[in-house]
Amino acid sequence: MTIRFAAVGLSHPHIYNQIKALLDAGAELAWFWGAEPERIAEFGQRFPAVRQAREIDEILEDPGVDLVASAVVPAERAPLGIRAMLHGKDYSAAKPAFTTLEQVREARRVQAETGRIYAVHFGERFDNKATVHAGELARQGAIGQVIQTTGFGPHRLLGHIPRPEWVFDSHGYGGILNDLASHQIDQFLYFTGSASAEIVQSQVGNLHFRQFPLFEDFGDLNLRSEKATGYVRVDWLTPRGLDTWGDVRLFLLGTEGYIELRKNIDIAGRPGKDHLFMVDQQSARYIDCSGVDLPYGSQLVYDVLNRAETAQNQAQAFLASELSLIAQQQAVRLGATP
Amino acid sequence: MTIRFAAVGLSHPHIYNQIKALLDAGAELAWFWGAEPERIAEFGQRFPAVRQAREIDEILEDPGVDLVASAVVPAERAPLGIRAMLHGKDYSAAKPAFTTLEQVREARRVQAETGRIYAVHFGERFDNKATVHAGELARQGAIGQVIQTTGFGPHRLLGHIPRPEWVFDSHGYGGILNDLASHQIDQFLYFTGSASAEIVQSQVGNLHFRQFPLFEDFGDLNLRSEKATGYVRVDWLTPRGLDTWGDVRLFLLGTEGYIELRKNIDIAGRPGKDHLFMVDQQSARYIDCSGVDLPYGSQLVYDVLNRAETAQNQAQAFLASELSLIAQQQAVRLGATP
Repeated sequence: MTIRFAAVGLSHPHIYNQIKALLDAGAELAWFWGAEPERIAEFGQRFPAVRQAREIDEILEDPGVDLVASAVVPAERAPLGIRAMLHGKDYSAAKPAFTTLEQVREARRVQAETGRIYAVHFGERFDNKATVHAGELARQGAIGQVIQTTGFGPHRLLGHIPRPEWVFDSHGYGGILNDLASHQIDQFLYFTGSASAEIVQSQVGNLHFRQFPLFEDFGDLNLRSEKATGYVRVDWLTPRGLDTWGDVRLFLLGTEGYIELRKNIDIAGRPGKDHLFMVDQQSARYIDCSGVDLPYGSQLVYDVLNRAETAQNQAQAFLASELSLIAQQQAVRLGATP
Repeated sequence: MTIRFAAVGLSHPHIYNQIKALLDAGAELAWFWGAEPERIAEFGQRFPAVRQAREIDEILEDPGVDLVASAVVPAERAPLGIRAMLHGKDYSAAKPAFTTLEQVREARRVQAETGRIYAVHFGERFDNKATVHAGELARQGAIGQVIQTTGFGPHRLLGHIPRPEWVFDSHGYGGILNDLASHQIDQFLYFTGSASAEIVQSQVGNLHFRQFPLFEDFGDLNLRSEKATGYVRVDWLTPRGLDTWGDVRLFLLGTEGYIELRKNIDIAGRPGKDHLFMVDQQSARYIDCSGVDLPYGSQLVYDVLNRAETAQNQAQAFLASELSLIAQQQAVRLGATP
């Protein structure tokens, strides 16, 4: 027994991560809809057997569709998710899943009323084996209480994948903190088990790519909950000498040890990705996480079938999104470097 | 041609780093004075030929002494330095060199009036080969403009070296941010070339070692200057499984690349210390810094002889100390973990 789902909105290639998680879990991809001709063509090549909808309503009105997955342009993700829930469907949004706090409020309300799932696909956690394994270790108390997390989310701007126009205007995706730091805020809440948190400070700036005046290439923020504190730094400054799009790190500081994740690359070190380093009261050791299973897709299918909440804590998904937007709103704008 | 110096105050073993830098540069250690019998005995064993003063004044009144180096208890470092300068001598203080802002003001005033040197021995920079080499690379523009620094300064509390009573009371050393984060604040100013900066936020807490109620085992802070931002995290939580006292890191984010220093250890990786990793527009590479020369001692001797300022920028030394104290004063006190 499985579920049928649709891909609605292909504006960011993250849709393929969302699709992969569900297909790997045995779900059936029944429909797709896209706005951009080149994205539609690409999708058609990758999934020639999947039916293309002319209108989104064709999908929303198909009672055989259980879940809608979307990477439509960020500002349209929440309105689509709300419509999907009101049509009785569960929803998986690419991040950022929201571009305004009003959207979060409305989605929270409709989610509570309909009992549908509004999932936010935080790929730096769900699609990363080292992060999944760190979650398991932290849950087992391997490093005691997690009292601090520090995360770096650098990204490459040019040359990795073609980027549409709207990327170079912060308004399109709610700014760098909403877009990139949301991953790390999600991980702060998840690893520290915090059900609430405040933004202590946040900053954004265009410090290098001056040719895109509406773009933010750097941002950071601090979080604080009753249990822990967190620091998040994100940027679009990955240099060309790195063999991947970003040297994403996560440091978990516990009362009895610490964990470092080198998610995508171990610079000038071990090959591949999914590197976990742990130091506890016994030893310092390396754990290769390349063989770890990613449970997210199966859990989401289970949740859709059983009206459960195993893949992602619904309140945490909304809270991470809300905090990202608050951090962005409150951010001090950094001046130019001299 | 060289200088004669005295070791006045042996309360922290850092005095031996200060002495080593000067002896390696050819300076002559002429006198010592200490308060604690066990520290005096240890010093006598290490330097049996050095004359012990019964009173500090014996040293201050010896016209043959050019410089006084001190690791007296932190609260007495500035008063001693001020006396030394008023006696026409240069001064090297262990960090923290101050425990109150009033001390910084007074030392600044007397330093300006006398033209003497008030050096603060920031060992995480002066005694660390990877940090010295990173300074050289940054100065050459190897990673463009340094727009952000993140530093971790974890330390082991128990079992590494015996620690005197006053360590377990924050008042004795001005708190964890003044004591440990001052290193990293110094490095922020140095690597970003910032002549002024503000503390954006700071936090301290006793999150683990509840048996020492006056102790702070965690702290962090954010800095901002016109040129860059910085984040500093320090703690006393190094787990027993680590082969050294602390996995000290420094991350320099530049507009054209980044550098990571693993100063003391490369966990589950390369042996030894002094590890530098650099990613620029060409490649990602490892640089073993174990063969790098430490110029600090020779520069300080040169400065004493030539009334120069090559070892340490005097204004930066005061500013780093002042910012550390401000961060400590303003710090939000974190609650207990649940």
